[in-house]
Amino acid sequence: MKLIFSKSDLLKSINISLRAVSSKTTVPILKNILIDASGQEIRFLTNDMELAIETTVPGSIIERGKIAIEARTFSEVIRKLPDGLISIETNERMVATITCEKIIFTLPGLDGEDFPHMPEVDRDYSLGISQFTLKEMIRQTIFSLNMNENNKLMTGELFEIKDNYLRLVALDGHRIAIRRLALGGNYEDRKCIIPGKTLNEISRILSDNIEDRVEIFLSANHVMFCFDETSVYTRLVDGEYFRIDNMISREYQTEVLANRREFISCLDRSSLLIKEGDNRPIVLNIIDGFIEINIQSSYGSLSEDLDVEKQGKDLRIGFNPRFLGDALKVIDEDDVHIYFVNGKAPGYIKDEEENYIYMILPVNVL
Amino acid sequence: MKLIFSKSDLLKSINISLRAVSSKTTVPILKNILIDASGQEIRFLTNDMELAIETTVPGSIIERGKIAIEARTFSEVIRKLPDGLISIETNERMVATITCEKIIFTLPGLDGEDFPHMPEVDRDYSLGISQFTLKEMIRQTIFSLNMNENNKLMTGELFEIKDNYLRLVALDGHRIAIRRLALGGNYEDRKCIIPGKTLNEISRILSDNIEDRVEIFLSANHVMFCFDETSVYTRLVDGEYFRIDNMISREYQTEVLANRREFISCLDRSSLLIKEGDNRPIVLNIIDGFIEINIQSSYGSLSEDLDVEKQGKDLRIGFNPRFLGDALKVIDEDDVHIYFVNGKAPGYIKDEEENYIYMILPVNVL
Repeated sequence: MKLIFSKSDLLKSINISLRAVSSKTTVPILKNILIDASGQEIRFLTNDMELAIETTVPGSIIERGKIAIEARTFSEVIRKLPDGLISIETNERMVATITCEKIIFTLPGLDGEDFPHMPEVDRDYSLGISQFTLKEMIRQTIFSLNMNENNKLMTGELFEIKDNYLRLVALDGHRIAIRRLALGGNYEDRKCIIPGKTLNEISRILSDNIEDRVEIFLSANHVMFCFDETSVYTRLVDGEYFRIDNMISREYQTEVLANRREFISCLDRSSLLIKEGDNRPIVLNIIDGFIEINIQSSYGSLSEDLDVEKQGKDLRIGFNPRFLGDALKVIDEDDVHIYFVNGKAPGYIKDEEENYIYMILPVNVL
Repeated sequence: MKLIFSKSDLLKSINISLRAVSSKTTVPILKNILIDASGQEIRFLTNDMELAIETTVPGSIIERGKIAIEARTFSEVIRKLPDGLISIETNERMVATITCEKIIFTLPGLDGEDFPHMPEVDRDYSLGISQFTLKEMIRQTIFSLNMNENNKLMTGELFEIKDNYLRLVALDGHRIAIRRLALGGNYEDRKCIIPGKTLNEISRILSDNIEDRVEIFLSANHVMFCFDETSVYTRLVDGEYFRIDNMISREYQTEVLANRREFISCLDRSSLLIKEGDNRPIVLNIIDGFIEINIQSSYGSLSEDLDVEKQGKDLRIGFNPRFLGDALKVIDEDDVHIYFVNGKAPGYIKDEEENYIYMILPVNVL
């Protein structure tokens, strides 16, 4: 095999491929990028057994072939080469020689015959949306997952198409994050649960340009994201997702309109008094015109008044300040509406159209 | 006690004070900043028993007093307050109330009576140089120390005034770094060994402005650095320093002139093939016009030609690539002269006036 690339093209493709290389795997071949130039195109394949990525790399095939190279070293080597043309050539002992100007690296490779195949995903059902929009919806929900949870259903997000809306839902037992997008087309209702890890990795390679599209193919056990020169495959989480809609109350006794940044600054300050596993709640005393905010720990105390517009009953309620802050930080609006039922029921941060809903369970306070 | 500060003044002084707060100390009082406003000025004092810092803080004394506050929390709290005026008030139970606008923090404090005193340093001998120059001389030598070394002499730098030159020397058994500065004045010869940790911390608070001066007071057991509103005290390392001048050879058989950046890039690339404790040498084969550079490890190989001007004998010699790179990275010149005696003797990177000398021991190669 002999291939020639520009450094920038090669590096871009390697960066995409690395998202599906696990450093922790015990299967040596999975630490590799499979360079497959046995056909008309050069393709890089990586697979960590949950996520698989295939990307087509611009470059010239001087001689066809195939080799698997340890991904981290390969990536570091290419990164440290000067800008310019890079050739990769293999010999019969599966050693790759990487040449750039007067620099010659050799790296041992594997023939890649035992590299796992990409899953077969049928293409009956698909959905096309903006890459940037998908990336944003992931960012605005994924913090509510608990990826270390034993309950597998909490390690993935609900991905639901219903009444021509796409809805992403993440929850961890203390809070729920929901983002909704009007699809502008006619789609059959469908739902599946996509692993949080996949969403995390894919959001790092999706484009920031709202014009760029991603096509999402859903099948019984897999989902495939196709965009630019890249396809990302992932296995779905098995099981029936939680009945979210039954958990959302709409009978509120207290409603406040607060400045988002001021509220976040106050929560940031309160976090200074909570260290390592100390779960002190922040106490909100909601009265006309402002919220008296209070937190006490062994490190000290903070009290602060936050100006708000308030309707309905006065209320005293406690929260984990991190959960409030996580939700407020991913909202784009300057002002946010927060709704409460009573001191023992969840609080809801949401917009009027319910394009986003963040539900947070309260913490008991005296 | 009641004091009023601007946030920016307060934060600047805290940042200086933090350099002498150890997070690892088992003596609780040493985790504190002592705020001493018992006299005409507000002074912050910190001490980690090796290094002590005293800095004067601009601010108003409404009521005199003294309190010790846990440094990390105090620093984080001030950082998260809005820009503006901050008041610090203490009560008889030694609780500090920190107020800024509508935000009220309380932090528990200590009376600070058992806070260690600053050492007495006599002011008989002193030396004034530019803060930036001192900072640079530290940066350009300190990487050659081994701060974890059992031999205490290798954990500090020689600070020597001789023939109206200041010389800083650091060594770790494999290499020596020497920087020299003409003092432009008449000074009695003196020398001492300053702990590397002190030099590290002090270089973080010295100014980048070449006009700003630091006055250095040397006494038998201590050194004191006075600059701006701050005094830094440190205990000296005991003992007789190594006889450096006997270790520097000047009988060279081979001399090369190399482009510094190209050499560094090449060393950076070679480091990709050395991982975790694997001490592979880089082999330099010096011939007319260029150096053939070669490194081999279980991760692969690199060979590369570096164009140089060469005088004297051909030479084959091996080095730890990191030692060569560390020295080359702190030199300002575009081109560097490197001198060799033979394949078993040290290499020397130095300028013609010997204002810098980096000596590196070779590694045996076949």
